[in-house]
Amino acid sequence: MQRVLWLALIIMIPTPTYADEGLWLFNNPPLKLLKEKYKFEPTPEWFAHLQKSSVRFNSGGSGSFVSADGLVMTNHHVGLGALQKLSTKERDFVKEGFFAKTLADEFKAVDEELFVLMEIKDVTTEVKGAVKDTMTPTEKFEARRTAIAKIEAAAKETTKLEANVTTLYHGNQYHLYLFKRYDDVRLVFAPEQAIAFFGGDPDNFAFPRYDLDVCFFRVYEDGKPAKVANHLKWSEKAAQKDDLVFVSGHPGHTDRLNTVAELEYLRDIGFPFLNRRLNRMEVALTVFSQQGEEEERQAKDMLFGVANSRKARYGGLQGLQDPAVMAKKIEQEKKLRAAVESNPNLKDSVQAWDSVAKLQKVRGKLIKRYQMLEGGQGFASSLFGVARTLVRAGDEFSQPIEKRLPEYNDASKESLKQKLFSKRPLYKNFELHKLADSMHFMVEVLGYNDPIVQKILAGKSPKQRADELIASSTLWDVEIRKKLFEGGKKAIDESKDPFILLAKLIDADARAVRKQFEAEYDEPSKQAYDKIAEAKFAVEGTNNYPDATFTLRLSFGTCRGYEEGGQQIPFQTEIGGAYTKAQAKNNKPPFDLPKSWLDRKDKLDLSTPFNFVFAADSIGGNSGSPVVNRAGAIVGILFDGNIQSLVWDFVWDDKQARSVAVCTPAITESLRKVYDAGSLADEIVSGKR
Amino acid sequence: MQRVLWLALIIMIPTPTYADEGLWLFNNPPLKLLKEKYKFEPTPEWFAHLQKSSVRFNSGGSGSFVSADGLVMTNHHVGLGALQKLSTKERDFVKEGFFAKTLADEFKAVDEELFVLMEIKDVTTEVKGAVKDTMTPTEKFEARRTAIAKIEAAAKETTKLEANVTTLYHGNQYHLYLFKRYDDVRLVFAPEQAIAFFGGDPDNFAFPRYDLDVCFFRVYEDGKPAKVANHLKWSEKAAQKDDLVFVSGHPGHTDRLNTVAELEYLRDIGFPFLNRRLNRMEVALTVFSQQGEEEERQAKDMLFGVANSRKARYGGLQGLQDPAVMAKKIEQEKKLRAAVESNPNLKDSVQAWDSVAKLQKVRGKLIKRYQMLEGGQGFASSLFGVARTLVRAGDEFSQPIEKRLPEYNDASKESLKQKLFSKRPLYKNFELHKLADSMHFMVEVLGYNDPIVQKILAGKSPKQRADELIASSTLWDVEIRKKLFEGGKKAIDESKDPFILLAKLIDADARAVRKQFEAEYDEPSKQAYDKIAEAKFAVEGTNNYPDATFTLRLSFGTCRGYEEGGQQIPFQTEIGGAYTKAQAKNNKPPFDLPKSWLDRKDKLDLSTPFNFVFAADSIGGNSGSPVVNRAGAIVGILFDGNIQSLVWDFVWDDKQARSVAVCTPAITESLRKVYDAGSLADEIVSGKR
Repeated sequence: MQRVLWLALIIMIPTPTYADEGLWLFNNPPLKLLKEKYKFEPTPEWFAHLQKSSVRFNSGGSGSFVSADGLVMTNHHVGLGALQKLSTKERDFVKEGFFAKTLADEFKAVDEELFVLMEIKDVTTEVKGAVKDTMTPTEKFEARRTAIAKIEAAAKETTKLEANVTTLYHGNQYHLYLFKRYDDVRLVFAPEQAIAFFGGDPDNFAFPRYDLDVCFFRVYEDGKPAKVANHLKWSEKAAQKDDLVFVSGHPGHTDRLNTVAELEYLRDIGFPFLNRRLNRMEVALTVFSQQGEEEERQAKDMLFGVANSRKARYGGLQGLQDPAVMAKKIEQEKKLRAAVESNPNLKDSVQAWDSVAKLQKVRGKLIKRYQMLEGGQGFASSLFGVARTLVRAGDEFSQPIEKRLPEYNDASKESLKQKLFSKRPLYKNFELHKLADSMHFMVEVLGYNDPIVQKILAGKSPKQRADELIASSTLWDVEIRKKLFEGGKKAIDESKDPFILLAKLIDADARAVRKQFEAEYDEPSKQAYDKIAEAKFAVEGTNNYPDATFTLRLSFGTCRGYEEGGQQIPFQTEIGGAYTKAQAKNNKPPFDLPKSWLDRKDKLDLSTPFNFVFAADSIGGNSGSPVVNRAGAIVGILFDGNIQSLVWDFVWDDKQARSVAVCTPAITESLRKVYDAGSLADEIVSGKR
Repeated sequence: MQRVLWLALIIMIPTPTYADEGLWLFNNPPLKLLKEKYKFEPTPEWFAHLQKSSVRFNSGGSGSFVSADGLVMTNHHVGLGALQKLSTKERDFVKEGFFAKTLADEFKAVDEELFVLMEIKDVTTEVKGAVKDTMTPTEKFEARRTAIAKIEAAAKETTKLEANVTTLYHGNQYHLYLFKRYDDVRLVFAPEQAIAFFGGDPDNFAFPRYDLDVCFFRVYEDGKPAKVANHLKWSEKAAQKDDLVFVSGHPGHTDRLNTVAELEYLRDIGFPFLNRRLNRMEVALTVFSQQGEEEERQAKDMLFGVANSRKARYGGLQGLQDPAVMAKKIEQEKKLRAAVESNPNLKDSVQAWDSVAKLQKVRGKLIKRYQMLEGGQGFASSLFGVARTLVRAGDEFSQPIEKRLPEYNDASKESLKQKLFSKRPLYKNFELHKLADSMHFMVEVLGYNDPIVQKILAGKSPKQRADELIASSTLWDVEIRKKLFEGGKKAIDESKDPFILLAKLIDADARAVRKQFEAEYDEPSKQAYDKIAEAKFAVEGTNNYPDATFTLRLSFGTCRGYEEGGQQIPFQTEIGGAYTKAQAKNNKPPFDLPKSWLDRKDKLDLSTPFNFVFAADSIGGNSGSPVVNRAGAIVGILFDGNIQSLVWDFVWDDKQARSVAVCTPAITESLRKVYDAGSLADEIVSGKR
């Protein structure tokens, strides 16, 4: 009986027209999909409000305005760097949390920059128009760079907004993004890391989950809380099962449009090398942390970041090593290529896949040297980053804008200075530990006999070189950095600082490998993908979205659990579950609830919805994204994907893969009952101070 | 004034004739060195007594008899595997320690085997005689293997002792070692790991140090404590500054006779690959441990071993990446090669260095595949080891002895069965975690498209394959292993166990790469080093020692501190120092003293010597070695080398490098005052129960 009914049902249900896939552009939202599948027809105002209520943390995450007075909500793990930089041996905001009872108590975060996307303009024609067929790859690359630099400079001049041209579809489209920038960002509230990251590494990318992964900042203008025109209305009710929800955030990077050959590169070279480095860093940071409580505190945010990346990248590589995932990609590509080959209008695109395949060999040859020298991975101390920036600033800012490296454009000068003159604390032993470890790794990777390695070592061991760099550098002093920056190339040339000398020593080699990489890989890759994207549009229609680029995107899906190991995982957890789990694990780290939660257990409504999963697209960088309902009210804050979602790097699937968020009621409940932060809860509920 | 005196002193002192270098053979001890430098002339009986009081732990360490009733002392970290195997969720000997008040309380250790070296015979002529110039490399390799198998079998037959032919000087000499084997080994005493490994990873390979890295076993024969003819007298007095001391133990492996080309192989390929694997394993085990207290317990000894190796190998590689170390090696080799080239009698040796250099390329090409498939590193579950052994036992034991792989010789059959039928606990999730992680790593290393990888995966992901192997194997049951072993090849052929099927699936490829490695690298390497060793003997005289081979060696040196970072490090610490350090670190792991030590602080004489350093040669495998004085009495137990000693893998140096040991008085003091183990202290002091 049941079986017949079930069969009947299958026959009755139309074939699923659209999966809830997509990291959609705000200037090309999936209107048709939403209308057909969900009968939802949002207005242009609905999109504009959501867009302008969304915030990008330049340190690598998302957030949203939740009051008219500049209050921003993001994840605790997005704010972690800021919390770490504000902490000292005496006061550890990461461990203890923080709450500013009054505006006067709100602490200015170091280095933090927030961007709000105000406008998008398609500049594809202008950018592509600058590139002529007769040019060499290097000329093409530089012509494009020059065109982009000019577009950005002109836009900044006109609008006074931060201007950035983003490459979409791996080189098929170019959009100009105009951002409002906030650089006075103050800390309002953060819980203890123990509850923000309850369950630690074992529960990371897992569900069920019990994390209060949230913190609040406030943006200021002219020393006062900024008045913002758009903020999201707070929903005091959690999302319900099967509710349609939306995510507005900044997914960082995906590889879904990659050809199979490029995925194979990632599987065979890119990810294994990345994992090798992440494993090494995780061990180095763990070892440093074991030396004592203060060392543990100093390394905490970096260790969190490395371990988090390691788990994410392991998951991604496991996807690539899964024949079922790869088979799907191979099949898709085969179909597309067959369609292209049979269409005479697309004959220009036929060779593009083979071009990409050939380019992967070039990439594989250059990538390690590129990452070690140009990426600076061989010198993992903040002081090397400072020295590199000073040396290049001296060279670049004396050039006309179209000749400069893009990161030395006038558009990004303020951000660059903010980083360069950052007052965040640096610790000698920690810098030494990271530097020595990375220099040993560089020798492994480049090979001891590489001439640049011999030049760097100068007859000493990597450890001895690291020792002398750290011991005798003057760049610890921000005032000295300022003098070197202001003194320009002359000051740099006269500097005897060992980090400055090192940055100069390797600069020619680093620039050379970058240039080679750009000419031999990056530029031809863009050209090939341009053809592939054109073919794809022609065959599949334009209703598509580009790979993630750390720019604002919209995704959507419904709240629903999933099946795992024969068990049905419900879509939502409750606050009480955190206590149950902590007890089962003897409240031992990483399953230890903070004292505040243990003390206030009786006050909390344990049935308050805590975390939930939903089948909307997301990826790293989406952390902190608001999750809103049809009414545009915020019902949650995205902080993770489950382990099955880690293949979303390459391919969408929603059988088990889910995004994970904190429910809004858990936030207000804990603010009021655990943290005595009723005033903050009132502000987010009412939308104003 | 001072400067003149100092110059005068330099002129007066004869150039240092001999450094205290050397891992000497007991059948060729450094009599001349000891006489000339230390005016010490030990008798043959002195050597024989020390030799037969020394014990090898086949799990990878050293020890000594300290009473006539079979009491054996070794390091806690040598006994760690045994402690772990005896532990359960309910009773954790690693964490809590153990003391058997009576013989009846002494616990039988799982898998533990102890070997005592009874005799050494030089069989170089017989082994080399089996190899003819006209043979192919494979024939040579097999002829040598056959000759060795026959020598071992005959010796075992005649003496009833375990017989093993050891290759010395990388192939220039072959010695037959005859061992008495003990397989009834019982646990007598172990302290808590917190004091045995006080300071954890940060203090590992460091000094000053405060570790009670000691435990006691007792060997039994016929169910009774074995009566042993030789045991070391206990010194209740610690070694004094400048005392000459001796180490008798089993250094595992050194690369000091390596040519520069082989060191470069280790620097550029061998060590980086090993470190990549160790880092990965350390992360995998750490992640597993974080899941809960029981998981932490299950992974503890393996995590300890991996982290310990990682720190040692990092140190070794840092040495190889130090131009000063390499320059020394290059200079030595240049001198030797010049001498060889100018001596017509040595013309056969001239090409040997170039041969070794060429062979490193072969080695580099084969090593990863060899380690993954033949070394089993792609399948890091104990059950794979069991399956591999069963499959090969089925094949090998049906062959005549001279055709078999050497590990399936009759001589080692008892040891093999002991491992195969081990009752040590295995944990499903832990085996799964290790297996899945190593299979993912194998895919990275061999490459996804390698045909053997595709065969292994069989259309599934590594994790899915690991899941099904772990879920459906029957080899968890020791009785089933016994049946498969006794059933021989037929039973194996009929088995449907997934691990047996996997072991069979890869066996041809694994054997093929092994054979290729033996023929193309191992055999020609032996031949080349034979020539190098001959040349070295001719040029430098025979007063030399071979690289370490996990066979018994003697080393010597004096007790003395060293200078580090402008500080003079005293040669010895006291028990009180452990309390001072723990307090400075808030008694936080890994600087937490166990409760027993905190409770008994008032009873202890805090000025008791605890750990000391001395400039005698040692290397991994020496752990647990007795340190004796001129009178042959035991004054300490070696448990470590300092960080500067890690270059001893490749080159001797005693400017700062030191071995590290526990002082005997700290052992008796803590047995009596902390552990209420006065009876055990009495036994070791009196030398009998």
